[in-house]
Amino acid sequence: MAAAAVVVANGSKEEERRGGGGIDGPTNPMVTPLLTDLYQFTMAYAYWKAGKHNERAVFDLYFRKSPFGGEYTVFAGLEECIRLIANFRFTEDEIAFIQASLPSSCEIGFYNYLRGIDCSDVEIHAISEGYVVFPKIPLMRIEGPVAVVQLLETPLVNLINYASLVATNAARHRFVAGKSKLLLEFGLRRAQGPDGGIGASKYCYMGGFDATSNVAAGKLFGIPLRGTHSHAFVSSFMSPDEITEKSLQSCDGSNVCEDFVSLVQSWLSKLKWSQVLGGIFGETNQSELAAFMSYALAFPINFLALVDTYDVMRSGVPNFCAVALALNDLGYRAVGIRLDSGDLAYQSCEARKFFLTIEKEFGVPEFGRIGITASNDLNEETLDALNKQGHEIDAFGIGTHLVTCYAQPALGVVFKLVEINKQPRIKLSEDVSKVSIPCKKRSYRLYGKEGYPLVDIMTGENEPSPKVGERILCRHPFNESKRAYVVPQRVEELMKCFWPGRSGKEREDLPPIKVIRQRCIEQLDLMRPDHMRRLNPTPYKVSVSAKLYDFIHFLWLNEAPVGELQ
Amino acid sequence: MAAAAVVVANGSKEEERRGGGGIDGPTNPMVTPLLTDLYQFTMAYAYWKAGKHNERAVFDLYFRKSPFGGEYTVFAGLEECIRLIANFRFTEDEIAFIQASLPSSCEIGFYNYLRGIDCSDVEIHAISEGYVVFPKIPLMRIEGPVAVVQLLETPLVNLINYASLVATNAARHRFVAGKSKLLLEFGLRRAQGPDGGIGASKYCYMGGFDATSNVAAGKLFGIPLRGTHSHAFVSSFMSPDEITEKSLQSCDGSNVCEDFVSLVQSWLSKLKWSQVLGGIFGETNQSELAAFMSYALAFPINFLALVDTYDVMRSGVPNFCAVALALNDLGYRAVGIRLDSGDLAYQSCEARKFFLTIEKEFGVPEFGRIGITASNDLNEETLDALNKQGHEIDAFGIGTHLVTCYAQPALGVVFKLVEINKQPRIKLSEDVSKVSIPCKKRSYRLYGKEGYPLVDIMTGENEPSPKVGERILCRHPFNESKRAYVVPQRVEELMKCFWPGRSGKEREDLPPIKVIRQRCIEQLDLMRPDHMRRLNPTPYKVSVSAKLYDFIHFLWLNEAPVGELQ
Repeated sequence: MAAAAVVVANGSKEEERRGGGGIDGPTNPMVTPLLTDLYQFTMAYAYWKAGKHNERAVFDLYFRKSPFGGEYTVFAGLEECIRLIANFRFTEDEIAFIQASLPSSCEIGFYNYLRGIDCSDVEIHAISEGYVVFPKIPLMRIEGPVAVVQLLETPLVNLINYASLVATNAARHRFVAGKSKLLLEFGLRRAQGPDGGIGASKYCYMGGFDATSNVAAGKLFGIPLRGTHSHAFVSSFMSPDEITEKSLQSCDGSNVCEDFVSLVQSWLSKLKWSQVLGGIFGETNQSELAAFMSYALAFPINFLALVDTYDVMRSGVPNFCAVALALNDLGYRAVGIRLDSGDLAYQSCEARKFFLTIEKEFGVPEFGRIGITASNDLNEETLDALNKQGHEIDAFGIGTHLVTCYAQPALGVVFKLVEINKQPRIKLSEDVSKVSIPCKKRSYRLYGKEGYPLVDIMTGENEPSPKVGERILCRHPFNESKRAYVVPQRVEELMKCFWPGRSGKEREDLPPIKVIRQRCIEQLDLMRPDHMRRLNPTPYKVSVSAKLYDFIHFLWLNEAPVGELQ
Repeated sequence: MAAAAVVVANGSKEEERRGGGGIDGPTNPMVTPLLTDLYQFTMAYAYWKAGKHNERAVFDLYFRKSPFGGEYTVFAGLEECIRLIANFRFTEDEIAFIQASLPSSCEIGFYNYLRGIDCSDVEIHAISEGYVVFPKIPLMRIEGPVAVVQLLETPLVNLINYASLVATNAARHRFVAGKSKLLLEFGLRRAQGPDGGIGASKYCYMGGFDATSNVAAGKLFGIPLRGTHSHAFVSSFMSPDEITEKSLQSCDGSNVCEDFVSLVQSWLSKLKWSQVLGGIFGETNQSELAAFMSYALAFPINFLALVDTYDVMRSGVPNFCAVALALNDLGYRAVGIRLDSGDLAYQSCEARKFFLTIEKEFGVPEFGRIGITASNDLNEETLDALNKQGHEIDAFGIGTHLVTCYAQPALGVVFKLVEINKQPRIKLSEDVSKVSIPCKKRSYRLYGKEGYPLVDIMTGENEPSPKVGERILCRHPFNESKRAYVVPQRVEELMKCFWPGRSGKEREDLPPIKVIRQRCIEQLDLMRPDHMRRLNPTPYKVSVSAKLYDFIHFLWLNEAPVGELQ
């Protein structure tokens, strides 16, 4: 295996961690083999002590219910999992810590065993990142020595859980906002920790957002960046007298306006005394006016102003328009305004009217179409309410609700043993939805005549695959009365090999984020609309083959204790 | 300034970032000066372009409402902020990225300015980490050149927001669980990203939890670790026939049991045929029995078994007891069981009865007091319901709801400009709760006769401090009718200097996490109980001095536009 340097978080000394296949380590250097639950090590020790540690085990990683009351989920986080696996080795420092954390009675041979562990004998099949996925269907199938795979449980679940949750949340926001709107992720400050912020930016972009405010994420992943100024910038100014450097070159460089401040002030005065606009506002706030002029002098080609620091229609919008008109005189086109409080629908309509009146009144082409961005505690519900109310907003900046997944802050991804030593295993529960589906499996998506996916089906690993044009019985895994025949028009095997271990299989590439984002958008478009709607969506069907159904129920009866009535 | 090496996340090459005061960089190396919103850089450029970048500004960091419907918050995250500030310098790589992200029209001199930036001229006062804090009172006051302090906004808010939220959540869980219970944080797999998990472990411990399952957090912060085994471990075994190494030395080393498996089986048989226990169970699950025996052979002094893989009372508990009784024969004392599904209160009572019956029936001292740990989607409400129902649980393992702060996944920490160039600034809003409190301020906690804190009060920076035994008028900042005289028995200034900049003040130490945890526990104990209760807690009073009140309202009138009725 090739050597790849990985930075170790907070180690007193950076250590070299040997990696595999030339794949970089996880984006966050804190994702190390120690980022796991202690019980993975106690179990590893118990497996090792019992001589079971190399027994070949198969685990499925899946979730039981789609989030946010919806019927679909976007699968994300796979690349980070593969990066962890490719570089999964313990450093001496880590082994010393594990040794200090386990009882002193644990035999020293175990730590030598840990020293030799890597994922070269682990095989990972997974659905491609960015796919639309459904409950119970394995997102990943992890096969390998039981003790090693067990150690992977916690970090893999951690890396998939939030990634898929927030990508799904982004997709849902896009669904409500519509394709024509610009969606900006502004959540860094409210995210659950620094990495929550970076992960949010990455996976919101993957789920269909257009840009982020998070500079670090922009650098790490090449996500487009957006941002202008805050309320503090506005209130940091006192009055236009503060502005000493007042000259501004015209857009084409042909001339220089020596006193941009006066030009703005003359426009403001024209607006104020205009017959159609006069009366909307009186004296505008002078610190705000100074801030806008100053920002325009710094960014004449990117002038976008936050207009609600004092009063949107009585101060912010008129001040903005005066600056925008002055810029227009010099050949620049202002980008727009941002609204960050109050009744966004109403304000956007009022601002639009103001812009359109100026276009007409002063003969400024396109002025009416100046961009309106809205932010302030937006979420799916408020976007939906804005749509119903009618608004003139072109771009939405969404933060807290998006990145913390406020409506449901966790996805219940689980990691279950389905086979060991070629023996299928089942986890029972009084709650049927928590019973695991045993066996090393394959899964397929079956498409119907209209091109929509109809049903996902799981089969045993060695069953023949469903065939196009051939009728197949799809059964609900636990409800015997729910079953249907399907004649697929297209059959897609869902899991591909992303880490071949020693199998000799070809490894699927890890595509760039832009490719995954595009795939995700196409996947979402492919679904039948009734599965995707916000209210009462139709559940997408998830099934097992007749053979797998019979086997599940045989095993279930076999493992469940027989009660004794008294 | 001393040089401190900081690992740069994901840089193609690690770069040295010069730090200050010998303070290490942030725990997560992804916390760099780039972990901020783009608009902090566009504003910095606009300040620089306007020649305003070095104007001295004062910002307050605070929140507007305590989370989870409560009336208190635990302040956490300060140390990470100071670590960022102490090491706040841009690398060349970062400056190149900023340059590529801003319009090409931006002048090159700005990037030279960024090259020279650090926090040596920034001064930070803050409340001590682990304190109980309240809305509107500044948690931190950040003073320095406006462009630099603005760049700090996003990372500081990010570092405080989740830290304080999850520490508060932990404190609330402790409040419901009671002091005698062991509280274990088990949330890593469900946390919002890897760092969400590490932060959760750190701040839940700070907020009063006893231990975590997260090994990486244990290593980074010295938090006690806990964990045993999962359902997968249980189902990875088939039958006791698998166990080949059956010998176990007695606890005192005096003899060896050659066939521990048979010893367990004979105990299981005794339990089954016992007159008082017989009938509760029939054939127990053999894979579970094998797993328990195997785990006990690996960890005879730490035997704790997860008993709900098949059926708690018909399989898990009898299997556990058989193993525990065999261990007891060899002088070991089993630690206990873990319940992870179903009716935890009922099951814990049934298990306790079973243990007590064994203690009596077989004369095994203390067997009745074997530990019972419960997990499975616990939160404040379920803990409260368990208490009301009556239970026999000794320890709670809490994951998803705790670490994702399910009941409220974000705290609304804000960062507001309150003064620039010695001029007080205010941010207005139609929503009074969003109006900022202007001026560089001090804040005090006033204690009453019974030793409880009575009220927090903010004053102007240069007002005389409240005095013990002297009557002072405390006014609600925005509601003129709400005011009260207080004669404090103790006056505590809340903010201390944690980063002196060039002020020459002494820098407060950053104590170890155990000290902060203890402080937090003491702080919570100090509060009047009605502020802390879950249902309808009494709001703690937050006030301003009469002088500050008058000044706020003078400034408000000054800045607000006057309407024109038509």
